[in-house]
Amino acid sequence: MQLGMIGLGRMGGNMVRRLMKRGHTSVVWDHAAAAVEKLAAEGAEGAASLADFVGKLARPRAICLMVPAAFVDSSIDALVPLLSDDDVIIDGGNSNYQDDIARAKRLAPKGIHTVDMGTSGGVWGLERGYCLMIGGEAEVVERLDPIFAALAPGRGDIPRTPGGEGLARTAENGYLHCGPNGAGHFVKMVHNGIEYGLMAAYAEGFNILKNANAGAAVHEKDAETTPLRNPEHYRYELDLASIAELWRRGSVITSWLLDLTAQALAADPQLSGYGGKVSDSGEGRWTVAAANDVGVPAHVLTAALFERFASRGQDLFQNKIQSAMRFGFGGHLEKK
Amino acid sequence: MQLGMIGLGRMGGNMVRRLMKRGHTSVVWDHAAAAVEKLAAEGAEGAASLADFVGKLARPRAICLMVPAAFVDSSIDALVPLLSDDDVIIDGGNSNYQDDIARAKRLAPKGIHTVDMGTSGGVWGLERGYCLMIGGEAEVVERLDPIFAALAPGRGDIPRTPGGEGLARTAENGYLHCGPNGAGHFVKMVHNGIEYGLMAAYAEGFNILKNANAGAAVHEKDAETTPLRNPEHYRYELDLASIAELWRRGSVITSWLLDLTAQALAADPQLSGYGGKVSDSGEGRWTVAAANDVGVPAHVLTAALFERFASRGQDLFQNKIQSAMRFGFGGHLEKK
Amino acid sequence: MQLGMIGLGRMGGNMVRRLMKRGHTSVVWDHAAAAVEKLAAEGAEGAASLADFVGKLARPRAICLMVPAAFVDSSIDALVPLLSDDDVIIDGGNSNYQDDIARAKRLAPKGIHTVDMGTSGGVWGLERGYCLMIGGEAEVVERLDPIFAALAPGRGDIPRTPGGEGLARTAENGYLHCGPNGAGHFVKMVHNGIEYGLMAAYAEGFNILKNANAGAAVHEKDAETTPLRNPEHYRYELDLASIAELWRRGSVITSWLLDLTAQALAADPQLSGYGGKVSDSGEGRWTVAAANDVGVPAHVLTAALFERFASRGQDLFQNKIQSAMRFGFGGHLEKK
Amino acid sequence: MQLGMIGLGRMGGNMVRRLMKRGHTSVVWDHAAAAVEKLAAEGAEGAASLADFVGKLARPRAICLMVPAAFVDSSIDALVPLLSDDDVIIDGGNSNYQDDIARAKRLAPKGIHTVDMGTSGGVWGLERGYCLMIGGEAEVVERLDPIFAALAPGRGDIPRTPGGEGLARTAENGYLHCGPNGAGHFVKMVHNGIEYGLMAAYAEGFNILKNANAGAAVHEKDAETTPLRNPEHYRYELDLASIAELWRRGSVITSWLLDLTAQALAADPQLSGYGGKVSDSGEGRWTVAAANDVGVPAHVLTAALFERFASRGQDLFQNKIQSAMRFGFGGHLEKK
Repeated sequence: MQLGMIGLGRMGGNMVRRLMKRGHTSVVWDHAAAAVEKLAAEGAEGAASLADFVGKLARPRAICLMVPAAFVDSSIDALVPLLSDDDVIIDGGNSNYQDDIARAKRLAPKGIHTVDMGTSGGVWGLERGYCLMIGGEAEVVERLDPIFAALAPGRGDIPRTPGGEGLARTAENGYLHCGPNGAGHFVKMVHNGIEYGLMAAYAEGFNILKNANAGAAVHEKDAETTPLRNPEHYRYELDLASIAELWRRGSVITSWLLDLTAQALAADPQLSGYGGKVSDSGEGRWTVAAANDVGVPAHVLTAALFERFASRGQDLFQNKIQSAMRFGFGGHLEKK
Repeated sequence: MQLGMIGLGRMGGNMVRRLMKRGHTSVVWDHAAAAVEKLAAEGAEGAASLADFVGKLARPRAICLMVPAAFVDSSIDALVPLLSDDDVIIDGGNSNYQDDIARAKRLAPKGIHTVDMGTSGGVWGLERGYCLMIGGEAEVVERLDPIFAALAPGRGDIPRTPGGEGLARTAENGYLHCGPNGAGHFVKMVHNGIEYGLMAAYAEGFNILKNANAGAAVHEKDAETTPLRNPEHYRYELDLASIAELWRRGSVITSWLLDLTAQALAADPQLSGYGGKVSDSGEGRWTVAAANDVGVPAHVLTAALFERFASRGQDLFQNKIQSAMRFGFGGHLEKK
Repeated sequence: MQLGMIGLGRMGGNMVRRLMKRGHTSVVWDHAAAAVEKLAAEGAEGAASLADFVGKLARPRAICLMVPAAFVDSSIDALVPLLSDDDVIIDGGNSNYQDDIARAKRLAPKGIHTVDMGTSGGVWGLERGYCLMIGGEAEVVERLDPIFAALAPGRGDIPRTPGGEGLARTAENGYLHCGPNGAGHFVKMVHNGIEYGLMAAYAEGFNILKNANAGAAVHEKDAETTPLRNPEHYRYELDLASIAELWRRGSVITSWLLDLTAQALAADPQLSGYGGKVSDSGEGRWTVAAANDVGVPAHVLTAALFERFASRGQDLFQNKIQSAMRFGFGGHLEKK
Repeated sequence: MQLGMIGLGRMGGNMVRRLMKRGHTSVVWDHAAAAVEKLAAEGAEGAASLADFVGKLARPRAICLMVPAAFVDSSIDALVPLLSDDDVIIDGGNSNYQDDIARAKRLAPKGIHTVDMGTSGGVWGLERGYCLMIGGEAEVVERLDPIFAALAPGRGDIPRTPGGEGLARTAENGYLHCGPNGAGHFVKMVHNGIEYGLMAAYAEGFNILKNANAGAAVHEKDAETTPLRNPEHYRYELDLASIAELWRRGSVITSWLLDLTAQALAADPQLSGYGGKVSDSGEGRWTVAAANDVGVPAHVLTAALFERFASRGQDLFQNKIQSAMRFGFGGHLEKK
């Protein structure tokens, strides 16, 4: 099957490569001509312009956008005048699912279908395959099945879940039509929300392990700092890298994120290359917004997100307020 | 009534002054001779040594310690050999209530009573009176009633709680025998735990107000940062100092802590004199420990404490772990 | 000055009474004829219909809506065709500030002004006055100053904040023009978000106090429940009502919310009339949404909100998931 | 090598089976004679009494306790008089590491060694092997290496972490000498703390997915409940079981806990066999206590634990307090 790909960065480029490996053809376009040339050299059909790109695709066209969320609408606006009835635009980036709903509503009168394809797997997807969470009209999603099947990991050596015979046919191959427009990005959004929670759980745990030697250090006694009540309980110098490796084997908390943690700690147990400013790219916030809207107590997912905000210093003013109150009622000065 | 005071810092010194104003006498001692001389000049009886201090007190002695928690045990150890049967040691500092329980058990065979007196009111206590939370044997606490009554604020112009006729006699005068040894510091501990929660609630709220202009700033579009979806909703430049003043008058969230916040913001709305490193002095941690022990979900009090930890950079390593994971699965680099 | 009031429930009715006491006149209307008659008997001018209501008001009209947020738009839709250029609609309810922004934009072309008036003080406002947070065009807000001044508490016996000479003139009288349309409800929203945090802080603290006797109870030993490590530390039977009363006097955590807690506990220390299902009425969620949007780590305000969600059982499915996992890895059965 | 096993429940029994499969011998004892007989029939050497058990073990003895934490001390007390110099007691249960420290100190003068062996893997350990976190004297742990190697999973088909050549030799076989006495249970404690966080992250996420249809339901308008602002954003009926299966394949959040979730949802997407009361067995609390002691902001791990407390209704009184306050300031009645 033929797929047109717009956006040939890390994600889009590798998706094209994976499709070609599996016998599909691809027309590719990107503002960066070098990216187009590179993929053309690998077997894709390069386009010289957006119009050229559209012209090279067979109707009904299947076009995938792999561009930053902030550029999806402008990309669609440029594309739509060139499209024909029954063409499909797949948004494979990290759009907010509410935008998918709005876009579907906006483009339906023009006869253009939209499909949202939430994608997990990161830079490893070329090799492992991409886990795909898909939203859109059933018949349109069905039409694109060969593409999804090729991008997804397939069953591989991960055994079927016992009792899973009744599950959606494709889930065990790593892709799923989740529901109408937006459903794919909704599920991807919650996926990332969970990811934030998992990451924070490991991170907090390792920080406790790192501080297991807190009782070994000597602290001066003063009225502003409470002494550790039982310093003899915190005199361990733990080998975090080996513990991460250990937990990968037979423990209840094995996971791919733990594998990645083990790699990072094996390379440098101090992680001295990192400054500790943790970005967030939208889905975590949208997950919290959804929990907030529907009234679900997502304490953990929210705390994980807020720890990222704080890591970037966005708690500075509230901390100043607290120091100011402490000075107000107790004359306490901040420690330097 | 006569009270011996050991520790003439901000708290101890002002307590002596308040007692003297209300017609009580005081023998005072401190390692700093200047502090003793100062209070002697104001009418207290100064002591030249700990032995001199004990000798000047009428039996059964009532001795109050106002020293940092870390020095309470050493102070008691120095004091005990000089004391007699039925003497009382009042710990007015911020001891952990579990230490009170242990001390009472340790000193009981020597015939020495202990009383724990949790004290709130900070530097304002001289003028407003100290709110006292008291633990110890009933007859011993009863014996000290004149002291507590003089230190406490009294009824003042705060009206009695409707329906409060059945409450403990002294509560509306600002002091209360809460229970056996440790009960006073237990109640004080939870008081401070609540205080942390209240402070954080105001602080977070004001930080949201401060960021109500987030939509006015322009952000570059990139894949690492989600754009604000509705910048037109965040274009307020709010006058935080006036808002704090406003809320003091008729709102549901009036409080003394808000009064202090209003003062700080009136003096400098940017709070530029503060660096945002918020100390914690023990009680907040002990409150969390108590909630943890008895199985009460203290989400708010704990989050408030942990925000203080983070304000002091103690989340650095866990944040590095998260950045390292992000690099691992997505090749994401930290923003500078 | 004359004010038209639509919505004569607890809030609207008392506002009219407060205005009349202070020499203002009021035209009133409500779907419930009895409510109109009652206020008419107290001196307001009752209206027989919405058209009658509008007709009785002098131009430019000042009309205040005190209706549930869900009915504000329909009320405005009914009202607008009857209004004239330069009339003002004041929304005194709990609208989302984003709706204020949209309404102002929508009504501006018709020459109708809107003002959002966030109101705190609850059922006590008649007596104490209402704390007013106001958003809208400066000249329109200025025009309504006599109304705001009459509704607000005024300076009363609350002393001016030291250093507060430079603050907005009206803040110390309990009302403030916070900014353009929506700013009033934005500030009110954060006010309520803080309120949620304060309430939860007290509530958690009192629950810890209540469980201070956890070590007195005897628990069977089993593999599913960890025993309390130090039961001797949790053997206090605390008098919560007296403690609440105590803290009202001289402590750092005095507040109006504490006064209310003291009243409730004085009436019934077990609070047996309550089931523990805590409602939320929007502002708490909107505060969390704002923090989430602007990237401020509002751990405490969010936890407070989420505890309310959980109090209403909205955590049921996530808890089932956890029990199912525990069964999966450890064969653990839920305790009955 | 020979190991004596006390406690033949799910965990202890299967450990003996795993050891025997790998060519080791075992002497077994349990209060339940049937458990002893069953394992004797499978090839272990059964003991008729504790004395008989000790007598059948070659010196220096290696004895493993697999009993609930609450019974470890009494088991040791019964055992010690029967032991000889240089014997080793391995505690393979869920003891608090602080007890390990105390026990090591207590037993050292008697010449008896103790080793703490934190064990993860649950009921699946017989098949997958047990992940072992070990604390104790280096030479004693070294002596027991054949036992640990047999219990642990070994390398299996989990690839070595890239860059992991410098890690502790045994970690990639699934066991690790973490440090002196208590270090094994300390690491196991944090492991479980992380486990709580991971479980809660998945659970919250799935609850959001389940409530993705919140906008489909119709709610009555009232002043106590805020309407969903955008019901059209929440009209998905998601197939949770298929989504869990999907995420197992190529997504960033694959893990063993997700596998278990997928199994549970495949069997019953409503999880109707569970009531949602989530137990905690100690390590989660101890992890929070450690974070609290050393000053690490473990927002996520703590929230996960507290959600369990709330699932068991331990938030009831604090919720009543909040409802009582709401009635106090606003006359709000609880919804039924």
